[in-house]
Amino acid sequence: MIKMDDQELKKLTRQLIDGTLDTDQFIQKIKSLPFQDLGEVKLDTHRALRKGFAEIVYCPGKSDEQLENIARALANTKENVLFSRAAPHQYEVVLSILHDAYYHEKAKMIGIKRRETQTTVTGLTVVSAGSSDIPVAEEAAVTAEYMGCAPKRLYDIGIAGLHRLLAHIETLQSSLAIVAVAGMEGALPSVLAGLVSCPVIGVPTSTGYGANLSGVAPLLTMLNSCATGVSVVNIDNGLGAGYLAGRIVLQSTN
Amino acid sequence: MIKMDDQELKKLTRQLIDGTLDTDQFIQKIKSLPFQDLGEVKLDTHRALRKGFAEIVYCPGKSDEQLENIARALANTKENVLFSRAAPHQYEVVLSILHDAYYHEKAKMIGIKRRETQTTVTGLTVVSAGSSDIPVAEEAAVTAEYMGCAPKRLYDIGIAGLHRLLAHIETLQSSLAIVAVAGMEGALPSVLAGLVSCPVIGVPTSTGYGANLSGVAPLLTMLNSCATGVSVVNIDNGLGAGYLAGRIVLQSTN
Amino acid sequence: MIKMDDQELKKLTRQLIDGTLDTDQFIQKIKSLPFQDLGEVKLDTHRALRKGFAEIVYCPGKSDEQLENIARALANTKENVLFSRAAPHQYEVVLSILHDAYYHEKAKMIGIKRRETQTTVTGLTVVSAGSSDIPVAEEAAVTAEYMGCAPKRLYDIGIAGLHRLLAHIETLQSSLAIVAVAGMEGALPSVLAGLVSCPVIGVPTSTGYGANLSGVAPLLTMLNSCATGVSVVNIDNGLGAGYLAGRIVLQSTN
Amino acid sequence: MIKMDDQELKKLTRQLIDGTLDTDQFIQKIKSLPFQDLGEVKLDTHRALRKGFAEIVYCPGKSDEQLENIARALANTKENVLFSRAAPHQYEVVLSILHDAYYHEKAKMIGIKRRETQTTVTGLTVVSAGSSDIPVAEEAAVTAEYMGCAPKRLYDIGIAGLHRLLAHIETLQSSLAIVAVAGMEGALPSVLAGLVSCPVIGVPTSTGYGANLSGVAPLLTMLNSCATGVSVVNIDNGLGAGYLAGRIVLQSTN
Amino acid sequence: MIKMDDQELKKLTRQLIDGTLDTDQFIQKIKSLPFQDLGEVKLDTHRALRKGFAEIVYCPGKSDEQLENIARALANTKENVLFSRAAPHQYEVVLSILHDAYYHEKAKMIGIKRRETQTTVTGLTVVSAGSSDIPVAEEAAVTAEYMGCAPKRLYDIGIAGLHRLLAHIETLQSSLAIVAVAGMEGALPSVLAGLVSCPVIGVPTSTGYGANLSGVAPLLTMLNSCATGVSVVNIDNGLGAGYLAGRIVLQSTN
Amino acid sequence: MIKMDDQELKKLTRQLIDGTLDTDQFIQKIKSLPFQDLGEVKLDTHRALRKGFAEIVYCPGKSDEQLENIARALANTKENVLFSRAAPHQYEVVLSILHDAYYHEKAKMIGIKRRETQTTVTGLTVVSAGSSDIPVAEEAAVTAEYMGCAPKRLYDIGIAGLHRLLAHIETLQSSLAIVAVAGMEGALPSVLAGLVSCPVIGVPTSTGYGANLSGVAPLLTMLNSCATGVSVVNIDNGLGAGYLAGRIVLQSTN
Amino acid sequence: MIKMDDQELKKLTRQLIDGTLDTDQFIQKIKSLPFQDLGEVKLDTHRALRKGFAEIVYCPGKSDEQLENIARALANTKENVLFSRAAPHQYEVVLSILHDAYYHEKAKMIGIKRRETQTTVTGLTVVSAGSSDIPVAEEAAVTAEYMGCAPKRLYDIGIAGLHRLLAHIETLQSSLAIVAVAGMEGALPSVLAGLVSCPVIGVPTSTGYGANLSGVAPLLTMLNSCATGVSVVNIDNGLGAGYLAGRIVLQSTN
Amino acid sequence: MIKMDDQELKKLTRQLIDGTLDTDQFIQKIKSLPFQDLGEVKLDTHRALRKGFAEIVYCPGKSDEQLENIARALANTKENVLFSRAAPHQYEVVLSILHDAYYHEKAKMIGIKRRETQTTVTGLTVVSAGSSDIPVAEEAAVTAEYMGCAPKRLYDIGIAGLHRLLAHIETLQSSLAIVAVAGMEGALPSVLAGLVSCPVIGVPTSTGYGANLSGVAPLLTMLNSCATGVSVVNIDNGLGAGYLAGRIVLQSTN
Repeated sequence: MIKMDDQELKKLTRQLIDGTLDTDQFIQKIKSLPFQDLGEVKLDTHRALRKGFAEIVYCPGKSDEQLENIARALANTKENVLFSRAAPHQYEVVLSILHDAYYHEKAKMIGIKRRETQTTVTGLTVVSAGSSDIPVAEEAAVTAEYMGCAPKRLYDIGIAGLHRLLAHIETLQSSLAIVAVAGMEGALPSVLAGLVSCPVIGVPTSTGYGANLSGVAPLLTMLNSCATGVSVVNIDNGLGAGYLAGRIVLQSTN
Repeated sequence: MIKMDDQELKKLTRQLIDGTLDTDQFIQKIKSLPFQDLGEVKLDTHRALRKGFAEIVYCPGKSDEQLENIARALANTKENVLFSRAAPHQYEVVLSILHDAYYHEKAKMIGIKRRETQTTVTGLTVVSAGSSDIPVAEEAAVTAEYMGCAPKRLYDIGIAGLHRLLAHIETLQSSLAIVAVAGMEGALPSVLAGLVSCPVIGVPTSTGYGANLSGVAPLLTMLNSCATGVSVVNIDNGLGAGYLAGRIVLQSTN
Repeated sequence: MIKMDDQELKKLTRQLIDGTLDTDQFIQKIKSLPFQDLGEVKLDTHRALRKGFAEIVYCPGKSDEQLENIARALANTKENVLFSRAAPHQYEVVLSILHDAYYHEKAKMIGIKRRETQTTVTGLTVVSAGSSDIPVAEEAAVTAEYMGCAPKRLYDIGIAGLHRLLAHIETLQSSLAIVAVAGMEGALPSVLAGLVSCPVIGVPTSTGYGANLSGVAPLLTMLNSCATGVSVVNIDNGLGAGYLAGRIVLQSTN
Repeated sequence: MIKMDDQELKKLTRQLIDGTLDTDQFIQKIKSLPFQDLGEVKLDTHRALRKGFAEIVYCPGKSDEQLENIARALANTKENVLFSRAAPHQYEVVLSILHDAYYHEKAKMIGIKRRETQTTVTGLTVVSAGSSDIPVAEEAAVTAEYMGCAPKRLYDIGIAGLHRLLAHIETLQSSLAIVAVAGMEGALPSVLAGLVSCPVIGVPTSTGYGANLSGVAPLLTMLNSCATGVSVVNIDNGLGAGYLAGRIVLQSTN
Repeated sequence: MIKMDDQELKKLTRQLIDGTLDTDQFIQKIKSLPFQDLGEVKLDTHRALRKGFAEIVYCPGKSDEQLENIARALANTKENVLFSRAAPHQYEVVLSILHDAYYHEKAKMIGIKRRETQTTVTGLTVVSAGSSDIPVAEEAAVTAEYMGCAPKRLYDIGIAGLHRLLAHIETLQSSLAIVAVAGMEGALPSVLAGLVSCPVIGVPTSTGYGANLSGVAPLLTMLNSCATGVSVVNIDNGLGAGYLAGRIVLQSTN
Repeated sequence: MIKMDDQELKKLTRQLIDGTLDTDQFIQKIKSLPFQDLGEVKLDTHRALRKGFAEIVYCPGKSDEQLENIARALANTKENVLFSRAAPHQYEVVLSILHDAYYHEKAKMIGIKRRETQTTVTGLTVVSAGSSDIPVAEEAAVTAEYMGCAPKRLYDIGIAGLHRLLAHIETLQSSLAIVAVAGMEGALPSVLAGLVSCPVIGVPTSTGYGANLSGVAPLLTMLNSCATGVSVVNIDNGLGAGYLAGRIVLQSTN
Repeated sequence: MIKMDDQELKKLTRQLIDGTLDTDQFIQKIKSLPFQDLGEVKLDTHRALRKGFAEIVYCPGKSDEQLENIARALANTKENVLFSRAAPHQYEVVLSILHDAYYHEKAKMIGIKRRETQTTVTGLTVVSAGSSDIPVAEEAAVTAEYMGCAPKRLYDIGIAGLHRLLAHIETLQSSLAIVAVAGMEGALPSVLAGLVSCPVIGVPTSTGYGANLSGVAPLLTMLNSCATGVSVVNIDNGLGAGYLAGRIVLQSTN
Repeated sequence: MIKMDDQELKKLTRQLIDGTLDTDQFIQKIKSLPFQDLGEVKLDTHRALRKGFAEIVYCPGKSDEQLENIARALANTKENVLFSRAAPHQYEVVLSILHDAYYHEKAKMIGIKRRETQTTVTGLTVVSAGSSDIPVAEEAAVTAEYMGCAPKRLYDIGIAGLHRLLAHIETLQSSLAIVAVAGMEGALPSVLAGLVSCPVIGVPTSTGYGANLSGVAPLLTMLNSCATGVSVVNIDNGLGAGYLAGRIVLQSTN
């Protein structure tokens, strides 16, 4: 849409010069260029380049038929693909069409790894406060892995036992980006950001009850962090945090 | 209301026995006892015994005339009195009638100390996260002082700089009750409760902006604390926290 | 983390003095001390001393396998253990490994009593407003029992029938701490705090419908209590209230 | 709108019979009847009969000019008029036109008493929890007075001191309707409804701070009352409660 | 609690006079009077007199065993009893013990009619806006029936078709109290209060979706009614509205 | 209600003239006219003329019996009928009575087409942001179809891929009304309104999780649109949007 | 952005053909066309065509200097301009530069009428519920006037007095679009939509107090309208509603 | 706190070896080391290294005296200092002590530049949707400048005029981090994230009215972004976003 196709433009101008097209025809063609087939195809390519995935498919509410259609459409892609929040039987559906699909059980993600990346880019740390935050943390970690990162996982080190967190201080302080996943009161990102200098992406989770308000409480906690260096994504949005942190790490190591 | 006046009862029964009252008159008098003048006076005394104050007066919205009336009514009390959230000119009004009134400027409280207490009961620590939380913290500390406590004040030691908090670990771990005052994300009480064994009373403050929602964010944080031993009072309610913590300390040292 | 291990330190300094370690090696060892294996184990011990439990396990969302692992890890503890909000079948899982596990049905708690306490410390009263608040009240009462308290239970004495509450006025006024559990409009803690002098821990419950907003209404009521001496924990958080009240009673009777 | 004007209808039918109007003209006139000038005037009369006031004018945001116009329009009414939430200078404006206007200072109401009522209908009690709730309580009491009621006022008898409330139990139990005005936690209507059998109209006030949420907390408390016989009006809406309670008392004594 | 038992008092004073009790024993007995067995029994009687029901039992969450216990305790009452929000199988449980129990299917209420009332007191009208509001409206109507009222039911006459509502204007205008049940936008009570002079009790229902917020939207609508004479009860609280309206009608016709 | 029945009126006036009715009888009859049987029937006709449907039935919560009754009552209507949010088995019920009923599966609507319209009125475009918003979009499209519109459907063209949206710019810019259905952040209507000049009706959907708050987030987004020409309907209310947009298109093409 | 400038394109292609530009230069220029100076100017023209205004300026928070700059930039426009929510002194600022500026006092709008329109397009009715809603209603009416509409104003005809509304039924039923402005409970749009067939644009206002929640209550009411044909704009957004209704009327009369 | 001071440790061990300290004294000193003066000083240094600022001072609510004290304490720092949300007169106060203080008027920030950085690190773009969002955007830009970045500013390019945004596509797509500041509906970050591959930090602003809810609406919009690569900070928190984006850019260019 944005960048027109130079080759096509050159061809058209040549046709204009050699008289194959008159000025009006030429203008008509020029105007139709970026918004039609060519443009779309180019953009999709662009998107893969920019975003690192052929597609990220959000599974809840999708019918088996819809999943099958999507899977078929992706059969020949050379980019990686992720299906998020996939139920086990949805994995069966996808696997029946994409035989290289793998099910990341804890993260509830289906992954198709098509692009060869040496998963050796370090610097990303995924931290979870409690054991029930692990599925969201895994969603973040797996997302980053498909981008080419090798995230370290530090799980169940919430602020109620500061020593557990401090025991990993070296790992934390040498990170290039940290994903901090926490439900309940959600204070983990603030505490972390007071100890490290790299960006901390907070992911509030819906773990908790009562005044937790399905994750609104930790969300507010993280938004109000008095420590610099914290930003926040939606409740339970491990994928978004993992993508963002992976992006930061990748561009910090290039 | 609950405990009737034995002296009065005895007088009435003697009148019944000696015929001054007949049974119906006696019953009529008995029934009117606990809910009238006598009862109210007694209860006020009771209240002072139980609660430690002749009166705690909430100043906002009170006219000068109302304050004068209250001050006059308290002129001869032998219990302590506190006026909370008092503007400087309200102090002038009270001082003109109660000449022993003292203005605690940071706490915005007027105090009348009538009951002799040796302010030497230690064990209460008042902690504030930021410097703008100090007025609320002072309200807590001053309230406890008028109950006979000698609170320690640890101000401006929020979680963004854990080392400042850990430097006072000995004081904190030897406390009998801690009032933890915090705005912004309000994570201080959770972190404290992970380090100490005594009760921690969290006071969320309205310090902050945006998603702080005038103190609702730190309130939710404290209510969701994953550490045991934390309870919470209303936003900016230093008085309530100071009273409660003072009460715990006093009954723990008797 | 905070208190280092004196024995280990002494051993190291002796090695330094006798030349087994040179200064650099010694410093290296010193610095690694409090944040590694040793530290963690010691802290857990510490925590038990401070908090009175080897572990309190929150069961919802835990898989049977996770529960088994936790149970095995706790097999030889000499401290008490509680599993909260445990479903009956989760009790089966824990019992198969910890044969001294007991199921407190109303409280939905599994308890392992390892530390011998004479459960004779009185002074804690657990009050519930309605009959549907009893499970939360029981969670509070059982928690306190495992800390060594002998709580009195006064259930179903809400404010719609004041006489039921007043009938227990002696018990209430002689308490050292009261846990007041109430759903609906949640006014019980305020009424109680007007009658007694000890701390009142309010526990709002999600009992109710419509404008109850799953417990937010009684939570707000309790936070706004105009009576001094009330603090509040999260909705349905009987465990937190029981722990806190037990702590106050224990330190008031030492 | 509902009841057409019989006189006018009779005139028209007579014109139809005597041929002054033909059928079509007649129908045209009939159809336009109830919704035009005549109808409006009649309805206003109706409204006074039904509602007891010529007009109730809400003053905030009204310009002096608007108030003058309204005052002039009401100059000759034979019904009572109330201006609510009137600032002192707005009283000056109204008084300059309606010389029998009276300013109820505490209630911030201007009253014009045109209909002779013997203000002797008893049975309405207006109760306020705190002294800062008095303006709202007065708005209720004054409204009822202009309807012909003689309300009893019981102010400053909140639930933090139950004895003050119980001292007036006879008055409360013999009421035909109670307006219960309360800010803070707003538990007064529930407690009252547990003691009496008549309708209790709860009026939450915006008195309080923090989690009071400008009156939303006592509003929720009252809506969740576990005692039967409570209904609620908007925050600070003394007028609505006074009108409703007055209405109940009047129809209960006819 | 409030009114002591004259007979008992007289007996005691006679024992005092004849020397069976000495003054101290007498005082001891007097003080224990109103808050113990006697007092409670008397109050329950009182409550029935005042409130018109032996008991109103809220069924959700009650176990079969609990219901059986309650049913047995009520076996010999001479007052009416209602069980609200009762599932069909809960009716079976109650019926097995109380053989005169009747199931009001639409209202989901079980009724035991023990007190003979000629259900002929008219003046109560129950209006519902939509057909899905009928269960709540029926809860109100049945409650009033057990108090001795003969409510008129006007269902499905919401404001989207004003003509249906206006068709019943005579019934509405001659009512002594109206219960107006409405979900969706909840404007029915406001429209009604503009047409009638009697009290209108609004009952918001959770009928609706999206921005209805489970009944919060109609609740707010009703609280903000610009027509005088409207008060509101909790979302879906037909019982509370029916009781209150019944009470108003009964005291208006005595 | 508004427009009386001329025929009936003429008959009555003739009876008045010929003496069959006297003036009083005539007035009585006139007054009862518009609000009784006749009026209702006429109004229903009116409604169909104005609103384009004999009835739109909201199915959730309706029993099979209720649906059958409604279906029977509509058996002979000559207007179109829609049943919204109908479960498949509810279609079976309706079909058993109305044999020309058709089930629009994606829209979950049952349609009865009785009025012959050439579905050729163009100018309405229904846009959905994501694939999970399609059911709501279909509800809008089908509603408009039964009004006589031929809506264009542009699905799955959200703002995360602007090029997909821009590819349809010609269709969008030549529309007379656009229904824009979007969940998640709900920015689609704003972006569209920046590109077109016709009215854009935004429909927030409950698609999303966490801070989506069941559709409140996109609802707020749409209400705050900084582009002119956007209005909003309730969350998931495809029917309301489809009706409104259809109405605009129809009156723009007459 | 979408439609490029044909003249410019033709000029460029001619330069390409005659050799003034080579292919690369030509492509470079082509690509820069629609998004730079030329594009912006053209688009503004486009926008005026589509949207009917050169600019609509939101005044709050704008400095005098900013307003002067904007006024100067608009000096020579041939389209109409509106400044909304303009304080009187802001009018002075604008007037000093644009001497044909007119101040619509009630609407708080400054208007510059440059495009000659015969303000005779009828069909738009602006209705307000109360007198305090008039400023918002005027904002809607004035906006439509500058688009070429001649709106009818029906003010102060809320639902508390249905007869006032019904008196204007003819005007309402013959409208092509209605803007319905209402604060308090906000039921006016629902009632109107039950009476008319044209689109009704609801504008909730912040008129009210307490549970009005600054306009959130009427906003929710309007969103939940059970009558078809209602859509809603932001609280107090008279401008948005006026623009939208004007747009509907204009395209319905072409 | 974490890394102890090697020099000090070595001194102590030498004293232990030469007998100046015995083992117990040594252990005592070791344990006090990291949490006292030395530790604090070291950490402050650390913090500057990690965080890039000697101090960031939040001015609202600070008294002149407090600001003077802070300014004096920072007199000799060699790191940069920022005072945020500073009123003009607060600048006077700071300037009187720190003569190299500079006032960034639009950002309302006082800056002290002590550390020499060549402000040439490019890659950060700060985008604002409207002109009233500029103060927040400037806060972000200035913060990044003091960290050593040279941010590009693209202001007033909201989504209502997509062409303005697309005109800067090259700048946006070559950024290493984008701060996107937007009030109203807050859709800008989502649209941007659909066009670029670098991290986008969304900053919702409190610009707007009504359903904007003081910035909560754009906050929710950004949290729900359906485009990957967006994270969010608190409402109006330009500083936090600027710091975070600066951090990402700096570590991406090292």
